[in-house]
Amino acid sequence: VTVVVLGAGSWGTAYAKVLADAGSPVLLCARRPELASAINAHRENTDYLPGVELPPTITATVHVESALAQAHIVVLAIPAQTMRANVHSWAGSFPTDSTVVSLAKGIELNTCARMSEVIAQAGHITVDRIAIVSGPNVSAEIAAEQPAATVIACTDIDRARYLQQITATGYLRPYANADVIGCELSGAVKNVIALAVGMAEGMGLGGNSTASLITRGLAEITRLGVAMGADSRTFAGLAGLGDLVATCMSPLSRNRQFGQLLAKGQTLEQATAAIKTAEGVWSCLAIVKLATQYKVQMSIVEQVARVCHEGISPQEALAELMSHKLTDEFTAF
Amino acid sequence: VTVVVLGAGSWGTAYAKVLADAGSPVLLCARRPELASAINAHRENTDYLPGVELPPTITATVHVESALAQAHIVVLAIPAQTMRANVHSWAGSFPTDSTVVSLAKGIELNTCARMSEVIAQAGHITVDRIAIVSGPNVSAEIAAEQPAATVIACTDIDRARYLQQITATGYLRPYANADVIGCELSGAVKNVIALAVGMAEGMGLGGNSTASLITRGLAEITRLGVAMGADSRTFAGLAGLGDLVATCMSPLSRNRQFGQLLAKGQTLEQATAAIKTAEGVWSCLAIVKLATQYKVQMSIVEQVARVCHEGISPQEALAELMSHKLTDEFTAF
Repeated sequence: VTVVVLGAGSWGTAYAKVLADAGSPVLLCARRPELASAINAHRENTDYLPGVELPPTITATVHVESALAQAHIVVLAIPAQTMRANVHSWAGSFPTDSTVVSLAKGIELNTCARMSEVIAQAGHITVDRIAIVSGPNVSAEIAAEQPAATVIACTDIDRARYLQQITATGYLRPYANADVIGCELSGAVKNVIALAVGMAEGMGLGGNSTASLITRGLAEITRLGVAMGADSRTFAGLAGLGDLVATCMSPLSRNRQFGQLLAKGQTLEQATAAIKTAEGVWSCLAIVKLATQYKVQMSIVEQVARVCHEGISPQEALAELMSHKLTDEFTAF
Repeated sequence: VTVVVLGAGSWGTAYAKVLADAGSPVLLCARRPELASAINAHRENTDYLPGVELPPTITATVHVESALAQAHIVVLAIPAQTMRANVHSWAGSFPTDSTVVSLAKGIELNTCARMSEVIAQAGHITVDRIAIVSGPNVSAEIAAEQPAATVIACTDIDRARYLQQITATGYLRPYANADVIGCELSGAVKNVIALAVGMAEGMGLGGNSTASLITRGLAEITRLGVAMGADSRTFAGLAGLGDLVATCMSPLSRNRQFGQLLAKGQTLEQATAAIKTAEGVWSCLAIVKLATQYKVQMSIVEQVARVCHEGISPQEALAELMSHKLTDEFTAF
């Protein structure tokens, strides 16, 4: 089985290592020829995954078309907002019976489309051939072979199980799941909740507040997901809870850092200058749109959007969250 | 409504403050007369909650019987393993129509009984009059009035809703839930998972491993709970996930600290000498017993019990966890 990984950033490179360690030869496609040459010459991606020795069964290349011609499995390690244009440009080159695996997390801003929808549309690929990988997977830790678990989701569960078998290693344990909607939604909303957690931390609040935001945030994601046809169990699983906790605990999370700066009084412009991009700042808008469309209340996501884009303070947003009508735990709040 | 809180430790005292801030006069029963006098004289519990000013509507006392005679609501803030003896000694004094609220977390070791079962048996109280409070509630943070949420569970949901109304404050937001089994089980198992998280951290592992243990640990708790008749949603809620995350993130968690020491090569005896008690070290045995009884696989809890009581190393336990057969995410593993 030959695997082609499109995108040689940190997660693409780390996942190429997983695939090679699991026994498949991997063609890793980079955009820049000098990066591809350096990877082949030194067995290391010094730009995006420095200090990690790559297996000899990974070959870097810039020739996407000829790589795709050999592919049984195509892995897309490309940012969410450029996914459509990239897949569109390769649409004719995906072998007819290949499986396409997405590592991207996010919702397309203008269309509110999930990544698997974007790939299906732009690549003319039926959804049963598209799988997504999501879970508590900080790439530097995976590359260091620290034990973790992940989810491989595909509406064709047999395909998910097949991918599970050929991607398992001693350090990354995949679980198969048929719920693509739930996995993709979790990956997008978690960044917004991480922003809220960062705001709470920036206000000097402790573990109770963080844990409450994670829990009630997950309840919001779950409500939206179920309304969109997802399986509620996914949100309690590795792609939901697992990824959310890993992101909210990671000192490296840009969304969390961004929230901390907002709570300390920085404006959106100042925080953007300091952190560059924090995905949640923009996807909160797409998620508020989805929530309206599916008639689901998402109080935390709404307050994050108001802080980011309407100028209310994190302190006012929190007071607003705490003043809602008292309810049972499992109704909308 | 007069509330009597039995037990003036840190959580009992912090919760007495919540009740007083919510508008009820509170009688706070301490064991030692000098502690009760000091609380009344200085409006502070310097032994267990130093630096926190207590409202004037809290009156400390050592006279349990006369306090109970006035009680509409009795709050039990007593360690799990001494609950039975204490409730038994007061059995004749609970007013007939009073509501009994338990703050205790744990499973009785010899009987594997939950706290509400212990209270019902020892106090001759029907279960519809017994409520429990559980959630991400580190007492020092609640006492500092940092915003958090909690769950009040009672099989009589109207009683839970009533308690919710009279215990809500600007900083602690209660949610009503009818699932007492789920809330009690979550509170006990989380300490065992915190031990496992501490072990992973002591081995130098990062956020992916922690998040995977929390997620798969919660899946184990959920399976046991559902087998015992609990509502699976509780485990994804504040008493389940919320409390688990707060405990696993808290640097103050004894269970987490205990696991870290075991991973660094200390024996059970050495770690016990350093940390004193870590509830999970003992309740893992009761939970393994329950898992066997209900025929549920709980791999993480079992491995924690083997490390604590059979002398295998945390490294061996982790290797064992990672070598299980690959499965779908939502089957037993």
